[in-house]
Amino acid sequence: MVATRAKVSRVAVSRAFNPHTSLKPEKRELILKIAQELNYTPDRAARALVSGRTHLVGVIVPDVCSNWESQEIDALTTALQAEGFATLLFKTRTDYSMDEQLLAYMRGFNPDSVIAFVENVKPTTLTRFLDRAVPIYVDYPLPGDPEPQESGPLFDRLNILQYDGIDQAVALLQGYGVERVAYLAGVGKSRASLARETTLRKVMAERGMAPPTVIQGDFGYDAAYQATIDLFRVGEGADAIFAANDVSAFGAMDALRHTLKLRVPQDVRVVGFDDIAQAHWKSYNLTTVKFDLDERVRALVRLILRRLNTPQAPCLEETLTTRLVVRGTVG
Amino acid sequence: MVATRAKVSRVAVSRAFNPHTSLKPEKRELILKIAQELNYTPDRAARALVSGRTHLVGVIVPDVCSNWESQEIDALTTALQAEGFATLLFKTRTDYSMDEQLLAYMRGFNPDSVIAFVENVKPTTLTRFLDRAVPIYVDYPLPGDPEPQESGPLFDRLNILQYDGIDQAVALLQGYGVERVAYLAGVGKSRASLARETTLRKVMAERGMAPPTVIQGDFGYDAAYQATIDLFRVGEGADAIFAANDVSAFGAMDALRHTLKLRVPQDVRVVGFDDIAQAHWKSYNLTTVKFDLDERVRALVRLILRRLNTPQAPCLEETLTTRLVVRGTVG
Repeated sequence: MVATRAKVSRVAVSRAFNPHTSLKPEKRELILKIAQELNYTPDRAARALVSGRTHLVGVIVPDVCSNWESQEIDALTTALQAEGFATLLFKTRTDYSMDEQLLAYMRGFNPDSVIAFVENVKPTTLTRFLDRAVPIYVDYPLPGDPEPQESGPLFDRLNILQYDGIDQAVALLQGYGVERVAYLAGVGKSRASLARETTLRKVMAERGMAPPTVIQGDFGYDAAYQATIDLFRVGEGADAIFAANDVSAFGAMDALRHTLKLRVPQDVRVVGFDDIAQAHWKSYNLTTVKFDLDERVRALVRLILRRLNTPQAPCLEETLTTRLVVRGTVG
Repeated sequence: MVATRAKVSRVAVSRAFNPHTSLKPEKRELILKIAQELNYTPDRAARALVSGRTHLVGVIVPDVCSNWESQEIDALTTALQAEGFATLLFKTRTDYSMDEQLLAYMRGFNPDSVIAFVENVKPTTLTRFLDRAVPIYVDYPLPGDPEPQESGPLFDRLNILQYDGIDQAVALLQGYGVERVAYLAGVGKSRASLARETTLRKVMAERGMAPPTVIQGDFGYDAAYQATIDLFRVGEGADAIFAANDVSAFGAMDALRHTLKLRVPQDVRVVGFDDIAQAHWKSYNLTTVKFDLDERVRALVRLILRRLNTPQAPCLEETLTTRLVVRGTVG
């Protein structure tokens, strides 16, 4: 009815309701005006039953308020909206304790795609619960990982290789004479943290350095602060702290400067991971290993669209690398 | 079929799929196991057409990655999930430029409820686009605002009164001998920022102080940093800076300490707004006016549930107040 009244195609009407598809502004305006007069809105619940698509993308995270994840969700929501998808946010616990219930619940919304970090939800669990959407995992491959098996559960994957950025960081530390490095780890079972530690050990061995001391954080500020205090008060100290993420690096820096009265970078050098927006704040001005956020989001959207267009494709994969952003905490 | 096989009621089956409703663990496990064997999952698209409820709550924000909003979304998603709702995230622009398109698009998902900040989407626009959900606005009432009219568009409201926290902050500043206060404003048209400025002027006048100088920020770190530099290099300086939010306060503090070489709190005192998680970090240790996040989220969930249970109710309202959290940036 809207199409007839506006003298346009049905496709044009459908496009008019998606804010980011291209359509002449005057045409869109006309369609929206007529649609409003007719009180017409495309009902996605009804359409979903016909088309089999809900235009919902589920994103599973443990903490929206971690700086890194909130920046990821922000960019992802913008990019998905531009493609006509809405972001459905699900919170899980990092200990896998609510996986099954959460997934049964999530499945009811029938998302077209689901994005998860491999450390938050087990791939086998997620694959078992989704009968339609093929999940996308953001993963940090480890040496010795089995090859993805053609016969195994079907999921797509975004791999983030950490070697380049870590190698650049260690080279910089070495150039400033650092010998004793402490690795400030993230949550115990986290593959991201484990992959960072493994890569750090490998790079340091290749460069003839002694292996790092490992101190335990949880990706948060407070645990990093306390672990750093313990390292210098109870432990053996270090020339440099390599933190599993930027927020941990902030906690370490505040412990060094404000409580231990040590100077950064003169007494202890600090490197972070992620390059979140806060890393450039003057109180920190952190040298850090960057995952390019825009690149990551573009890759995820490509994976979603490719899978929807070719539902029968075997496992899809994209791979991104990291690089060092040099600021003021090494030298 | 699941209910029959598990020898439970249909209600129990429905509850089993909602992770947070109370149900004996062994009962839930049995139901989920049988449901999985039968490959059964409640399809919400189909159910929505029957029940008229989608179990989706739309949340409209301009920046997920602002610290304040991400903490809000995190807490809200957890609370909504506990009530069986999923959070549908929509990004808008602060200049209202994409309102109509976004709302037409959003309406297609047919959310049960929509939460918006009054400064991001005009109430009249939103009310016009939603035919079913009654929007909830988070608002900062201003003196002289017209009373909500019974005859006007229907929307529910969460009011945040800023007087108490601001009055406590000004009293503390006054106690430390502050005379010249600069108000570091947020985005130009923001009602939150305007309400803070208006209340600050009122409180300062009541306490016999000269009105504050206003410097312009945008709720972000970088603009706050630059505005503070300008205030001291080009402008007349100040004894204290009252920032429109915590992130602005961080930018101001870094400008004072790292660029202007002034001490906080000895030379210039700083007060923020919000009490986000970063406010307690040692580099800032900020004295700030707190909106209790948990209280706010509980009030929003109460409004959603009350509206769904009594769709014909007139405008619902909840009102919260603020209070000062004293840390190290005033004295």
